[in-house]
Amino acid sequence: MTLDSPAARHAAPDPHNTARLTISCPDRQGIVATVSQFLYSHGANIIHSDQHSTGMEGGQFFMRMEFYLGGLDVAREAFERAFEEVVASVFDMQWQLHYAAQPRRMGIMVSKYDHCFLDLLVRRRRGELSAEVPLVISNHEDLRSDAEMFGVPFVYLPVSQSNKAQAEAEQIRLLKQADVDFVVLARYMQILSSDFLRGVGVPVINIHHSFLPAFVGANPYRAAFERGVKLVGATAHYVTEELDAGPIIEQDIARVSHRETPDSLMRLGRDVERQVLARAVKAHLDDRVLVHGNKTIVF
Amino acid sequence: MTLDSPAARHAAPDPHNTARLTISCPDRQGIVATVSQFLYSHGANIIHSDQHSTGMEGGQFFMRMEFYLGGLDVAREAFERAFEEVVASVFDMQWQLHYAAQPRRMGIMVSKYDHCFLDLLVRRRRGELSAEVPLVISNHEDLRSDAEMFGVPFVYLPVSQSNKAQAEAEQIRLLKQADVDFVVLARYMQILSSDFLRGVGVPVINIHHSFLPAFVGANPYRAAFERGVKLVGATAHYVTEELDAGPIIEQDIARVSHRETPDSLMRLGRDVERQVLARAVKAHLDDRVLVHGNKTIVF
Amino acid sequence: MTLDSPAARHAAPDPHNTARLTISCPDRQGIVATVSQFLYSHGANIIHSDQHSTGMEGGQFFMRMEFYLGGLDVAREAFERAFEEVVASVFDMQWQLHYAAQPRRMGIMVSKYDHCFLDLLVRRRRGELSAEVPLVISNHEDLRSDAEMFGVPFVYLPVSQSNKAQAEAEQIRLLKQADVDFVVLARYMQILSSDFLRGVGVPVINIHHSFLPAFVGANPYRAAFERGVKLVGATAHYVTEELDAGPIIEQDIARVSHRETPDSLMRLGRDVERQVLARAVKAHLDDRVLVHGNKTIVF
Amino acid sequence: MTLDSPAARHAAPDPHNTARLTISCPDRQGIVATVSQFLYSHGANIIHSDQHSTGMEGGQFFMRMEFYLGGLDVAREAFERAFEEVVASVFDMQWQLHYAAQPRRMGIMVSKYDHCFLDLLVRRRRGELSAEVPLVISNHEDLRSDAEMFGVPFVYLPVSQSNKAQAEAEQIRLLKQADVDFVVLARYMQILSSDFLRGVGVPVINIHHSFLPAFVGANPYRAAFERGVKLVGATAHYVTEELDAGPIIEQDIARVSHRETPDSLMRLGRDVERQVLARAVKAHLDDRVLVHGNKTIVF
Repeated sequence: MTLDSPAARHAAPDPHNTARLTISCPDRQGIVATVSQFLYSHGANIIHSDQHSTGMEGGQFFMRMEFYLGGLDVAREAFERAFEEVVASVFDMQWQLHYAAQPRRMGIMVSKYDHCFLDLLVRRRRGELSAEVPLVISNHEDLRSDAEMFGVPFVYLPVSQSNKAQAEAEQIRLLKQADVDFVVLARYMQILSSDFLRGVGVPVINIHHSFLPAFVGANPYRAAFERGVKLVGATAHYVTEELDAGPIIEQDIARVSHRETPDSLMRLGRDVERQVLARAVKAHLDDRVLVHGNKTIVF
Repeated sequence: MTLDSPAARHAAPDPHNTARLTISCPDRQGIVATVSQFLYSHGANIIHSDQHSTGMEGGQFFMRMEFYLGGLDVAREAFERAFEEVVASVFDMQWQLHYAAQPRRMGIMVSKYDHCFLDLLVRRRRGELSAEVPLVISNHEDLRSDAEMFGVPFVYLPVSQSNKAQAEAEQIRLLKQADVDFVVLARYMQILSSDFLRGVGVPVINIHHSFLPAFVGANPYRAAFERGVKLVGATAHYVTEELDAGPIIEQDIARVSHRETPDSLMRLGRDVERQVLARAVKAHLDDRVLVHGNKTIVF
Repeated sequence: MTLDSPAARHAAPDPHNTARLTISCPDRQGIVATVSQFLYSHGANIIHSDQHSTGMEGGQFFMRMEFYLGGLDVAREAFERAFEEVVASVFDMQWQLHYAAQPRRMGIMVSKYDHCFLDLLVRRRRGELSAEVPLVISNHEDLRSDAEMFGVPFVYLPVSQSNKAQAEAEQIRLLKQADVDFVVLARYMQILSSDFLRGVGVPVINIHHSFLPAFVGANPYRAAFERGVKLVGATAHYVTEELDAGPIIEQDIARVSHRETPDSLMRLGRDVERQVLARAVKAHLDDRVLVHGNKTIVF
Repeated sequence: MTLDSPAARHAAPDPHNTARLTISCPDRQGIVATVSQFLYSHGANIIHSDQHSTGMEGGQFFMRMEFYLGGLDVAREAFERAFEEVVASVFDMQWQLHYAAQPRRMGIMVSKYDHCFLDLLVRRRRGELSAEVPLVISNHEDLRSDAEMFGVPFVYLPVSQSNKAQAEAEQIRLLKQADVDFVVLARYMQILSSDFLRGVGVPVINIHHSFLPAFVGANPYRAAFERGVKLVGATAHYVTEELDAGPIIEQDIARVSHRETPDSLMRLGRDVERQVLARAVKAHLDDRVLVHGNKTIVF
């Protein structure tokens, strides 16, 4: 195939007719050359490309490539099969290919706070977040009318000490039924068990209302107030079995002064929380976040 | 005395002919009225005034007032005596009066890192920090020529596990001899004992190279790298007996990405450290920092 | 009246039973003393107090005092009359007294963008902004259902080149009928005439989608894109007759890179706009903004 | 050549034995594939790679690749010649190859302000900036001793209205003699003529003490004070013939309040200026800045 091939000439820059390839593999010579040559030879024109390596010898290599599909010379299934055979298997790659035209399905879990929840729904309505929201689960009724305002299904599922295991099983059943690709805890005020995380089987993103690893656990604004910090922060991270210790996706802070009360710290913190969570969810939806052990690469 | 009194007419706005009064006392009605009436009646014209209260009932009240001395109707000693008798004793006040024309004497302790040290010396030369530097103590020789470039006395005092108590006694002797009003640890890489803190008898400001309370202790940049944070921070605080737990004066952060190494985190962190320390030292020199238990009010 | 008076003993720290006094007058000796003595003598206990002076000789003095009303020894009208006679007239003060328990009435004008509008409505519902919203006017129908979701009256009033004067007259009539205390232009995409500003007779706050004075006028994101800036900003300001030149209340920025398109600049800018506008409106509602010529003091 | 070739096996990750290739060309399919294949085939192992395109059809493509030289299978001259013939000429590329082991030669022009100048010299001494400084030119004597402290040659060259053309000719002569690769105006308070810019023939980086395009020209802090802005900024840019209108490399801001005077705005601004200039110079030294018309791509 040459640059004058019909495929090349018809490569239309339709922003929705794109795919994102993410790769993780042991670092060694020739990865970029091989992948970009493969894409080129099949008429997939690269729009963006990011690479990261943790080091040449024994390091891990990460790559994200976004490309137009308009000029693809084979069907998608054949393209994916060829990539696995010709490229991925040779370099021992873990890889994912996501087509931008297929919005992801985002499950949301909330309690009573509305700031993160409303921010996600508004951004989605506005087209900033390319996601379906087939299910919202809450252990309170408070946000039902907000969910209805934005036309997303809301299920009330109370959780108590006595029914926790049962409630989690029902949450898993509902999330699987809704076929969600990932779950966002938009200030869901219950600690999820290891059983839940294993059972749900998709990534779970949490917003923690402090600058982790400071103030792990409950009541971080009270803890920040007691410690007399001059900044409050928020941290979006993937949830793992160890509380508040999962891979961090995004963090930010706001300046505070001695004038703040625990209440005003919460108010200032809310603005940071919703911003940090929205950035993390957008990065996840755009396939910009690759996990490496307990850390993330965010392209 | 009326507004047409000679004192009022002669109140000259000489920026150096000012004083700063800081007050801490149990909150109750009438404090601001009484203090401002006292200053007014003695021809001391208020330029700036800041108040803070932790709460009306059983709370603590803090105030900083900056005023011109040009119209003062009595000598300074008489003014101070009168304030104690007429105002302070009535309200059970702890108070300090500092005359801007008397620069404070700042002792500096350093090890090998130059960034905070040079920044303090340059700002002082430029007039941003109104302080004398009668003594720099270091446990290494590295920064001697920098001290000499800026004309400040440098004493090399090696510290080892075996001579630590002796070295600290000598540090205290030198700092007292130099008559310092406070000490700045500009990346001094030794933990100071409780004996030192009690013995030195003046406030000690430290710059910690993380966003406290995250990453207490040594090697915070390594710890930040391992945790995969997206921000690195620095904290300036008064030193107390508990490591890295003293009242926080100032904090700030810099954004970092997955690209950073422990080395580049240190490089980015240096810029934050020197900035945060300089702001804290300036606030201290301008009598803007009042300590309340383990917290600060920074006016 | 002494500190043991019944009024003092009953001063209840009810956060809603407070008032805020703002003052602007020529600077001279004795202002703080006189005002605080007046408040004290009437049992009004000061919670917060901020002062600013543009300079002693011929300068202007600004003050904001927040105090509890619980111990007031006279009726409000008598208190206000006494303040005018005993204090304000002596110092040639412009002053306002606002009782926190009386929420202000905020008129909102919008066009099609939802981000600032929704943010104001959500914060108000949550209690962050203490305001009534008796009227929303828009030159488009787009945001009607959002207004209805949050239970605020929405009036559609199309504006064209031919009907502009007439439309503005109707806007004024509606705003006066709704008895608004101030108007917020939450991305209202029409330039208001001098006639409107004079006619409406209350402060008007606008959010400009750039870091003023850069990119005055329409299409600032396009202009920012063309100029290749590395930051985009937003500015909340009081509207005056000269376009985008009124007193600035609040500004902030977001970092951007070469990757941005005009569209993504807009997306990033929206987050800054809503944040900056919300801070400005809150400062206005809390009586923290004093205007001085073309500038503001924000306590 | 295969992955088992001797070249591949000997690719040593010596951080100094690297090169950076920057490319600008019309965007079309196959660029990344061709370049990475070329590097791979010659044993040049890619460490980092960044791409940017202004759009597929008629857009411009930019790339920066950093790679190890340890495994290179030909001499550098042959490598460069081959790249030109096999790759660059085919894609109509403008390209530069810079070897990290060769530090660039940075000329500095200053007047009286020390903050940017000292910051550059300190960072260079510390190894943050990989550059030689063969020449400092100043129109004042003030910073001579600072230059000497850091061991860099200082030439005093007074400039007046009458001798400007002559002085600029001498500046050009000295800069050429010193063989500088680029010039940094570290608060050089003279406007350079078009003749100078053409004559000097290397990139010139300036730090402007405002957030461009706001406050173009002299006295931006005074202008910012008059306008009552709530942020002050600084802009590092390449100098072009139109004053303060060249491609922006980096910008940042600091928050300010109504309390600032023109003097304190300058003090706060200095910290932003030195930070912004240092980031821009480092990006330039690391070959991260590509110019596109009046804008920059900063990888």
